[in-house]
Amino acid sequence: MQKIDYIKDWDSWRSDFHFFTTTKVRFSEVDPFNHLNNTVPFVYFEDARIQFFKELGFMQQWSQPGSQTIPVVADLQCNYLKQIYFDEKLNVYIKIARIGTTSIDLHYMAINTKEEEVLVGRGRIVQVGKKSGKPEAWSETMLDALHKMKK
Amino acid sequence: MQKIDYIKDWDSWRSDFHFFTTTKVRFSEVDPFNHLNNTVPFVYFEDARIQFFKELGFMQQWSQPGSQTIPVVADLQCNYLKQIYFDEKLNVYIKIARIGTTSIDLHYMAINTKEEEVLVGRGRIVQVGKKSGKPEAWSETMLDALHKMKK
Amino acid sequence: MQKIDYIKDWDSWRSDFHFFTTTKVRFSEVDPFNHLNNTVPFVYFEDARIQFFKELGFMQQWSQPGSQTIPVVADLQCNYLKQIYFDEKLNVYIKIARIGTTSIDLHYMAINTKEEEVLVGRGRIVQVGKKSGKPEAWSETMLDALHKMKK
Amino acid sequence: MQKIDYIKDWDSWRSDFHFFTTTKVRFSEVDPFNHLNNTVPFVYFEDARIQFFKELGFMQQWSQPGSQTIPVVADLQCNYLKQIYFDEKLNVYIKIARIGTTSIDLHYMAINTKEEEVLVGRGRIVQVGKKSGKPEAWSETMLDALHKMKK
Repeated sequence: MQKIDYIKDWDSWRSDFHFFTTTKVRFSEVDPFNHLNNTVPFVYFEDARIQFFKELGFMQQWSQPGSQTIPVVADLQCNYLKQIYFDEKLNVYIKIARIGTTSIDLHYMAINTKEEEVLVGRGRIVQVGKKSGKPEAWSETMLDALHKMKK
Repeated sequence: MQKIDYIKDWDSWRSDFHFFTTTKVRFSEVDPFNHLNNTVPFVYFEDARIQFFKELGFMQQWSQPGSQTIPVVADLQCNYLKQIYFDEKLNVYIKIARIGTTSIDLHYMAINTKEEEVLVGRGRIVQVGKKSGKPEAWSETMLDALHKMKK
Repeated sequence: MQKIDYIKDWDSWRSDFHFFTTTKVRFSEVDPFNHLNNTVPFVYFEDARIQFFKELGFMQQWSQPGSQTIPVVADLQCNYLKQIYFDEKLNVYIKIARIGTTSIDLHYMAINTKEEEVLVGRGRIVQVGKKSGKPEAWSETMLDALHKMKK
Repeated sequence: MQKIDYIKDWDSWRSDFHFFTTTKVRFSEVDPFNHLNNTVPFVYFEDARIQFFKELGFMQQWSQPGSQTIPVVADLQCNYLKQIYFDEKLNVYIKIARIGTTSIDLHYMAINTKEEEVLVGRGRIVQVGKKSGKPEAWSETMLDALHKMKK
């Protein structure tokens, strides 16, 4: 297995994932090289992340017209382990790797129907003020939800 | 300035960029949080990269029907330094950071019209056999072109 | 119900659909007006169409490296009957409306979980020679498959 | 030239266009059939339309947080006249074909660098109440701007 700096031990790293969404590779997502275009995994990661935030109850809060905060992506990365082809079905897993005061680090893993890892990734999300654009601390309720989910 | 592990010294890192493409943020690239959706910078990076490969003469080679090799993305990452809004004009810079036997590391930087860095990134591209999917060494001609461009 | 020139009678038009694919609206498909961006229904239509072509056995043929023909879209249209929001689940139906010598007309309908039509559409697909770009007649086998599916 | 029901006379239809935006076909917009994916022209049309609405001063109004109205697409269609390839530069023209009380019909034409029409299209935009979702009449100022632009 390739050396990836955010994965210490593959087996334990992999077994920590529980939440996932399912997707199927669309024709419009495949490029002239006949494989999934490299920009699309980030769409899959976002889809998993948004569903994860719904599960946490965060999405409902951020989507309210009066909400003072929104989540922003601070950084994002993806390692492409295997080429992915049209019509493949993928499970896209997501988990919390670190909980900060105003941010969280999320890890991602997509596996195909043979249970092979095809994509892994990570990224930091920061909660910011809608107007200020500055980091805003998680509320108590949010922190509780995050810690409960991380276990 | 934020600490980013692939940037040692901002000033020299920034001054090393020469090649760039220009893009304007489309409405369909903006999401309900009213900023550029986080998946789109990778589209901009690819656009710059493909134009860069055209400049190098690689794209013409890989696109030939009889070509035995294609480029694949091994990994990709992006740091989002500033929120980006509808209709902003960006210059997306790209440069070679490392030349390997079968791969290259590319760095990216997008700046807005105020000359502020809004996105930075990096990623590795590997040349692989179309059928084998295994890494294939750059030809002499390709290596020459890469070294000339890196200077 | 709105007057749409390719729909004579809504009830019989609707009851003729059988084949469908299912999709869920992604966050990245929603725009700053908080509804599904108008460009995305065509992605859903294509997804249904490609699955339909797989069912017909056409996709397998066109995707072979040695294939002499490919399908091209001659025209496409969509009527947006209801605004569509993030996370809605849609069934996207497709059917054959007309079989020509080198082309077919396809009709589309997307319904939400309340069984309401939210999108309807139509478009013509032409089979063309890969090199010539000129229309190429359906083979006997293809015509048989089309007529069987249309019933 | 193909018979298209919203184009009476090609020469006069074409000469009525003045406003346009320019775009270049991205690699990620090309599909395994090596031509522009059929879903992308609608992205180009929207891009032209939004710039057109900016020119009219409408976009500024609809984007204000307190705006009571938004534009919605009622229908949209595209005729694909020629295959379009990676890296082609297109001028995407837009014009007003009809002004209604609450809606407008817009026509589109994309031409390549050889001045050939590669795409034509049309569609209706309706101004609706943000909450009601019901059509809302153009204001006097908006009607003036529309009529001035149509000339």
